[in-house]
Amino acid sequence: MVSTDTASFTQKLEAAQAASIVLATLSTDAKNVALYAIADALEAHAGEIVAANDRDVARGKENGLTDGLIDRLTLTPDRISGLSAAVRQVATLADPVGQVVRGMDMPNGVHLTQVRVPFGVVGTIYEARPNVTVDIAALALKSGNAAVLRGGSAAEHSNSALVGIIQTALVAAGLPSSAVVTIDEFGRDGAKQLMAARGLVDVLVPRGSADLINTVVRESQVPVIETGAGVVHLLLDESANLEWAIDIVHNSKVQRPSVCNALETLLVVESAADRLLPPVLSKLRESGVTIRADEKTRRIFPDSVAAEPDDFGREFYSLDLAVKVVADLDEAIAHIRRYSTKHTESIITNDVANAERFLAEVDSAAVMINASTRFTDGGEFGFGAEVGISTQKLHARGPMGLPELTSTKWLVRGQGQIRR
Amino acid sequence: MVSTDTASFTQKLEAAQAASIVLATLSTDAKNVALYAIADALEAHAGEIVAANDRDVARGKENGLTDGLIDRLTLTPDRISGLSAAVRQVATLADPVGQVVRGMDMPNGVHLTQVRVPFGVVGTIYEARPNVTVDIAALALKSGNAAVLRGGSAAEHSNSALVGIIQTALVAAGLPSSAVVTIDEFGRDGAKQLMAARGLVDVLVPRGSADLINTVVRESQVPVIETGAGVVHLLLDESANLEWAIDIVHNSKVQRPSVCNALETLLVVESAADRLLPPVLSKLRESGVTIRADEKTRRIFPDSVAAEPDDFGREFYSLDLAVKVVADLDEAIAHIRRYSTKHTESIITNDVANAERFLAEVDSAAVMINASTRFTDGGEFGFGAEVGISTQKLHARGPMGLPELTSTKWLVRGQGQIRR
Repeated sequence: MVSTDTASFTQKLEAAQAASIVLATLSTDAKNVALYAIADALEAHAGEIVAANDRDVARGKENGLTDGLIDRLTLTPDRISGLSAAVRQVATLADPVGQVVRGMDMPNGVHLTQVRVPFGVVGTIYEARPNVTVDIAALALKSGNAAVLRGGSAAEHSNSALVGIIQTALVAAGLPSSAVVTIDEFGRDGAKQLMAARGLVDVLVPRGSADLINTVVRESQVPVIETGAGVVHLLLDESANLEWAIDIVHNSKVQRPSVCNALETLLVVESAADRLLPPVLSKLRESGVTIRADEKTRRIFPDSVAAEPDDFGREFYSLDLAVKVVADLDEAIAHIRRYSTKHTESIITNDVANAERFLAEVDSAAVMINASTRFTDGGEFGFGAEVGISTQKLHARGPMGLPELTSTKWLVRGQGQIRR
Repeated sequence: MVSTDTASFTQKLEAAQAASIVLATLSTDAKNVALYAIADALEAHAGEIVAANDRDVARGKENGLTDGLIDRLTLTPDRISGLSAAVRQVATLADPVGQVVRGMDMPNGVHLTQVRVPFGVVGTIYEARPNVTVDIAALALKSGNAAVLRGGSAAEHSNSALVGIIQTALVAAGLPSSAVVTIDEFGRDGAKQLMAARGLVDVLVPRGSADLINTVVRESQVPVIETGAGVVHLLLDESANLEWAIDIVHNSKVQRPSVCNALETLLVVESAADRLLPPVLSKLRESGVTIRADEKTRRIFPDSVAAEPDDFGREFYSLDLAVKVVADLDEAIAHIRRYSTKHTESIITNDVANAERFLAEVDSAAVMINASTRFTDGGEFGFGAEVGISTQKLHARGPMGLPELTSTKWLVRGQGQIRR
């Protein structure tokens, strides 16, 4: 049932754009009423959502999706309640629209105010995780944006059910149904058209695999916010507190190894390797972590496997850790510069000069001293809902909250002034 | 003398990237010393620059460049002094690097600080204006970025001389010469490679014609900041103060018609047309403005020509103005939404409700009440030097100063905290 009708595709985006004009000037109250209506509707229609999801899951199993992917795809009544709870939480967050970023008077008395405004239409291309449909719809609505959603075909029945329920709730709350639209019916061609829809779509946020993100970055003419992979490094400095080293390395690697802020490479300065590596790595081994060690590390900690060259710079997403002894801070920073994806790096140290050098010279979205890399997270930073973690430098860097889904405009208030 | 050597192209960008690492942690003092050295060197070598420029100008005349383009291309000792003065002014501007954007503590005591950091390597593709070479080099340096410059072949001798002098001054000031590089020797292929150099170049700013900007937006895989055209509108509301209307419309159109913040379309609500149009348009006629009027306007002000349909939405860059009578504020906003390039729009009104509606509903980088559209300008806003005026919504919108040439990073300072 894939449509390749360009006219109807454009009409759908134009309808979203028209809806975005209504959303842009809505009061916070009106947006929150709609969010609560969506949350209630998702729970009220949980049976319908699960039935649609069952069809996707059955087809996924036929197509041989991995257990992990099937798990991400599956919606249960409990998970749907979780989605509703997330939507209600978005309603409690501060509305970024109208926030004053800067303000000043020109010497001639003209008042300048830079305020946050919605982007307009936010597009998303994502894969088989139907929860993204609800997350992005809620975040876009709260920030005054219309959402154009392109989910994967693997979740098409689930997404179609979810968007239908969201649209009904929007209309019941007095908002245009096109504030949230899916373009799944246009198939792969729809994704291509979305990436070309400069002028109709203001920003595109890809969420999913590195492959998906790279394709969108390469092909999109619409500005993209890249949410990327994390090859996360942690450095044990000579002066590192032993307890902190043990706890922070363990927490960074083990607490949730499948996410982008989990530790992938541990560096240790040579002068501290004998003191720190045995207790730090033993604690990891107790939790089943495979130590992929360079030669010097293996001599100190034989309960390890020899690292392959490409273990450095690799995002394992698993209980594996690359470990390397470096001569000094210079070599550590050079290693990070070469292999990091500029997501998160941390140093454990009690040396002020080294700490400040690390903070200044490591060029990542989050640079830490004496803290777990797992803290690079919108929730931990107090941003509430999770748009993603930007690893690009333009517009947003690091965890993205609602303000990162806005642009700004300058309000200029004069009393007849002209330029001299 | 065009090189198509990919390896040497990549080496050049890698050298710029290496230089950017040095620039990123330079003190403001060190950057200012280099800027003053550049300013002095440009004046000291003015003869050499003029000689190189003469070759470009001679070739430009042979190739039939218009007088306007020849004028933009030409460097005289006076203009070179002007460039030096601009570089010295950049030295006096506040250094954005290290500025704290936000800061807060996590509930567990971890301190978060979001600070401004340089992008790294800033690329520019521009046309036959050698002053851009100096402007961008100075702005990039002050904001801690390396600059990769791709000027037009029409200015290649001028740009080569300028970059050589800048590099010598950089080295004399103890900085790497690759902090400012030109890739002009790679010709058109160099521009293509620059647009593909994701990972080596952090942001690309095209400066020049709409054609150039559109090409970069379409083809670049490096994130782009679009600086664009201005189809600028001004609306005369029923309650408009007559003196303000006359002065502001005249200033917006006539003061400098060739720039992007100059007025292109005047709208007037029907109920005010008889009162306002004759004096407002008479004043414009005295300055030689051609009034391209719709039918209703022509009936009120016959000293005009009939507007062609495509006069609306047109950037004249000349003493021409499209004029249209609209029924009310709704029609005015709808007209602006259809034809504006979202640069600058202004309303002349004494009605608070209409003023607030205009500010809220018009989606442009700068939205004004009772002020000349010519105020949308980095210098007028107090930003000092001019990077350009962004008409996109991502990262920067409106006049761009030095802070818009920076990204941010999060500094995370813990005392052993782990995630629970």
